Amino acid sequence: MPEAKQKKTYGYSAKKNFYKQSEQKKVAKKNENKSVPSNTKNSKLKGNNLKNNQTKQRNTKHTSKKPIKIMPLGGLGEIGKNITLYEYDGDMLLVDCGMSFPDEETPGIDIVIPDFSYVLECKDKIKGLVITHGHEDHIGAIPYLLRDFNLPIFATKLTIGLIAEKLKEHRLLNEAKLNVVNAGSTVTIGKFSVEFIHVNHSIPDSVGFAITTPAGTVIQTGDFKIDTTPIDDEMIDLSRFAELGKKGVLALLSDSTNAERPGYTPSERVVGSSLETLFTKAEGHRIVVATFSSNIHRIQQIINQAVKSKRKVAVSGRSMLNVVKVASELGYLTVPKDVLIEIETIKNYPAEQIVVVTTGSQGEPLSALHRIAFSEHRQVEIMPGDMFIISATPIPGNEKTVSKVVNELIKRGANVVYEKMYDVHVSGHACQEELKMMLSIVKPKYFIPVHGEEKHLYKHSMLGMAMGIDSDNIFIVNNGTVIEISENGVNTSATVPSGRVLVDGLGVGDVGSIVLRDRKHLAEGGIIVVTVVVDATTREVLSRPEIVSRGFVFVKESEELMLQIENTVYDILESCYRGNVKDWNVYKTRIKDGVAKYLYNKTHRNPMVLPVIVEI
Amino acid sequence: MPEAKQKKTYGYSAKKNFYKQSEQKKVAKKNENKSVPSNTKNSKLKGNNLKNNQTKQRNTKHTSKKPIKIMPLGGLGEIGKNITLYEYDGDMLLVDCGMSFPDEETPGIDIVIPDFSYVLECKDKIKGLVITHGHEDHIGAIPYLLRDFNLPIFATKLTIGLIAEKLKEHRLLNEAKLNVVNAGSTVTIGKFSVEFIHVNHSIPDSVGFAITTPAGTVIQTGDFKIDTTPIDDEMIDLSRFAELGKKGVLALLSDSTNAERPGYTPSERVVGSSLETLFTKAEGHRIVVATFSSNIHRIQQIINQAVKSKRKVAVSGRSMLNVVKVASELGYLTVPKDVLIEIETIKNYPAEQIVVVTTGSQGEPLSALHRIAFSEHRQVEIMPGDMFIISATPIPGNEKTVSKVVNELIKRGANVVYEKMYDVHVSGHACQEELKMMLSIVKPKYFIPVHGEEKHLYKHSMLGMAMGIDSDNIFIVNNGTVIEISENGVNTSATVPSGRVLVDGLGVGDVGSIVLRDRKHLAEGGIIVVTVVVDATTREVLSRPEIVSRGFVFVKESEELMLQIENTVYDILESCYRGNVKDWNVYKTRIKDGVAKYLYNKTHRNPMVLPVIVEI
Repeated sequence: MPEAKQKKTYGYSAKKNFYKQSEQKKVAKKNENKSVPSNTKNSKLKGNNLKNNQTKQRNTKHTSKKPIKIMPLGGLGEIGKNITLYEYDGDMLLVDCGMSFPDEETPGIDIVIPDFSYVLECKDKIKGLVITHGHEDHIGAIPYLLRDFNLPIFATKLTIGLIAEKLKEHRLLNEAKLNVVNAGSTVTIGKFSVEFIHVNHSIPDSVGFAITTPAGTVIQTGDFKIDTTPIDDEMIDLSRFAELGKKGVLALLSDSTNAERPGYTPSERVVGSSLETLFTKAEGHRIVVATFSSNIHRIQQIINQAVKSKRKVAVSGRSMLNVVKVASELGYLTVPKDVLIEIETIKNYPAEQIVVVTTGSQGEPLSALHRIAFSEHRQVEIMPGDMFIISATPIPGNEKTVSKVVNELIKRGANVVYEKMYDVHVSGHACQEELKMMLSIVKPKYFIPVHGEEKHLYKHSMLGMAMGIDSDNIFIVNNGTVIEISENGVNTSATVPSGRVLVDGLGVGDVGSIVLRDRKHLAEGGIIVVTVVVDATTREVLSRPEIVSRGFVFVKESEELMLQIENTVYDILESCYRGNVKDWNVYKTRIKDGVAKYLYNKTHRNPMVLPVIVEI
Repeated sequence: MPEAKQKKTYGYSAKKNFYKQSEQKKVAKKNENKSVPSNTKNSKLKGNNLKNNQTKQRNTKHTSKKPIKIMPLGGLGEIGKNITLYEYDGDMLLVDCGMSFPDEETPGIDIVIPDFSYVLECKDKIKGLVITHGHEDHIGAIPYLLRDFNLPIFATKLTIGLIAEKLKEHRLLNEAKLNVVNAGSTVTIGKFSVEFIHVNHSIPDSVGFAITTPAGTVIQTGDFKIDTTPIDDEMIDLSRFAELGKKGVLALLSDSTNAERPGYTPSERVVGSSLETLFTKAEGHRIVVATFSSNIHRIQQIINQAVKSKRKVAVSGRSMLNVVKVASELGYLTVPKDVLIEIETIKNYPAEQIVVVTTGSQGEPLSALHRIAFSEHRQVEIMPGDMFIISATPIPGNEKTVSKVVNELIKRGANVVYEKMYDVHVSGHACQEELKMMLSIVKPKYFIPVHGEEKHLYKHSMLGMAMGIDSDNIFIVNNGTVIEISENGVNTSATVPSGRVLVDGLGVGDVGSIVLRDRKHLAEGGIIVVTVVVDATTREVLSRPEIVSRGFVFVKESEELMLQIENTVYDILESCYRGNVKDWNVYKTRIKDGVAKYLYNKTHRNPMVLPVIVEI
């Protein structure tokens, strides 16, 4: 049931006007029950009657309880690229629009985004995009969608700020329709009433959604944890989740990232006391802390410790500088005057008065920390005794790159704090007890674990059962599954197009499975290019075959082998010619197979063999 | 000081005569104090006077205390490819000869072996190779050394058995000089007296060495843990280490693998009780257990549980079959009659009567478990309810591949036990408390942490200091460092050649940094081959430039781009021709740079551009 609650939306406009006010008309009734953060005072609030129209529309259809469709288009069976499409009575709503990172199966790829074909097909129905929080796996694909479909976006202030930065880079900011919505508020988007509910996570201003239609209320938690002592003193709004639970929740889509981990995720504040201990230990030495740039609460705690120990803070790494800028401007980071200094000026201070906050906590090869570790950083050169704190846990797949950085730092005489040596990192996701708590207060009729690989979804479904949800009412589905919930029950038999699109440089989607297969083949064995020049009319071979290789063997030491390849090709050409073969493609296939076979026998390797026949 | 102790060596010969008796003459006095395992009775024991000669030689020089040199040629600053060279008074001894595995920095590489150039240079001095245990990182490079230098090898029975299997594959077994030495025995090799001391590890028959020369005793632990309740009931010979410690140990080289982990590594027996619980839970269903093929004690425990629950055991995976064969033949695996069945016959039994033991606990793409998970295994098809137990921890770098397999198994309806859900795996390496125990009983004058990355060596050195060793007497060195210990102290200023050699197919060392760089370049961006045919005398271009690409874009959808590349090349050729450029290399460089620049501007990608100019 839709709630009769005051709704508000804020048109967003930051001090420096780093993006234009959107054209989208906004609902702007102020919610008297909530205080507006002081720095929203610049926001231009405009009223319009969009809400009323929609509410009316909704009310007229109130009696006919139509089904609601929930279509996860990303984020299931994977970590990342979260995107979910809702449909009710011809209107659609998009929740989140994230990217994911490439892996060893996608060499050369920069980022992976959702396949938007179904979203674009439904352009006319989709009334808006709501975003839970400002992490890349929830906002990273927005620019790629907005190119083709400039739909209005609704999110909290910091999230909008981060989206705006991203759109600026993509030169899409001017046209974007960005709307700030405060946690605690409800916004009407088409036939959907979307309530923003504050949650704790590793980035401030995170929310979950209660999405209400006449079909009922669906809660999508977004990424969350339950932190009783968060840095911004705003605990997750458990009572609102409970209130909704009491009224009756049709379905819960909840974060499965940590569903394998028992117990509770510690409070972010735990990191503060570890930092305090370590700052004391590091007295007389420089401190370098690497963390996720988006973890603004973590950065705040580092700054707090720096202030306490009378140190200056320098920031290194593009994304870190970016986030610190946006977060400071929007009031999410409190930095006393004269504490932040430019990284170029650290040489003007004694080492013991410096804290460097840097990117690269995952050991990323181009990050600031990596450059420092391998002595490639222009401003930061390791001095023996420097204390390096890696305030993060390696994301699965990054263990080795992080180890490499740690080893380099130790080799150069630094003290390195990493992994479980001190509590210098806590997760941003709910562990099993928290997930059970969410299940227990929301008491959903249907439960759909989201945000996770198969194993996470499965474990989360087990937790659901442990909390008394009938296994028939729990749905582990795939990207593209249509979960249609009606009064008669749930139907998951339909699917819509979903999948991944690879971004490589400026190319979006032009790298597919054949190109990837070739890249992997090239990486494994290199390439041998065989060039033959022939007379187009007489079919005579006009030159000796030219053999060039890359990534196969060191040619200068393998002249004999190259000569043998040449001879092999020559024999093939001769036999084709004598056999009166007319089709150059047959020549090519025979060269390819013949050289590959020769090389496998000789070397047990499989380089790619690329025959080029030039007719003149 | 060398010990006056009875020495013995056993010539090794297994039942099926799967390798020939070595030509090397062997010392064969039986040590009365130790009982010989019953299944060594087939060994042919031959006496000779080699020992006596060497002992005499040693004794004559006894008074002049010469320095001992310890040269780690691998295993420092890395996990794997363990190899250490010792030198005393012109004689040399090699300890272990391992390989390591390739990573994302070495695409297409099969294995990594040590650079043997210094070993080969010292051929005439090196009197033998002693091996601590049969893991690949300690024996895997032996065939590559033996090709060029057929030195005598000394190891315990199981280790020799595994080496023999390996040499058979490489057709090197017939000439190999393999010598079985029992733990508890001492063998004289040149001027070195090497005592084999039993240790616990994740493969049976593991030993550490006490290497004695007139310079003193050096202890090299090999990989070890302290298991008070091992499966073969043979606890690590702590009292012997302690005895040596009391007499005075010059230096200790100890296993650093787990130096980051506090506490103790649990006993292998812990896994047995977890398996018991899980076998009970799995009643009525098939069980599949994946583990390291070399973990014979683990396999024994699986077999024990299978027997208890009246199940048959089928083995899948080449290396697993190999190890089960060797270990059974040599008496390291006790399998009751009719328990082992062929994997092809499991369909003849009801599911609940089957246990499959398989390779692939690291998610390796070609392993049996991977094939089962992705429905590519000929004999094992997943049935809902099957219990899969992954009895191993992912080695750093393998986390994602293991997750992929787990996800697939869950998707197909299996119950999967992995990671920390039950104690289904324990490490084979000593944790901090055990390492401290070893340090405390050996009480070495000098301490050299080995087997580990920089961070492990560093942590281990800290443990050494905590146990009272002066930091000046602890040496964290690199591969190739010569640790020269004399009565005057330790000198580590000299180095000898060391490094890695990459094995790709049959090629050993023909892939170097240039080839790897090219492979990485090809993997990232693919390749564009530009072929131009020219008249050798007139310098005229005889054809349109031919553009072929692989791993760059899907050509059928990028015809326009290909055409633009062709035009770019054409312009470059024309300007070269007009500029009267004579050198074809200049043409090539301009084509390469011009096309790369054009493509970067157009696509923000960096494919490899390979110009081929054919003169006719």
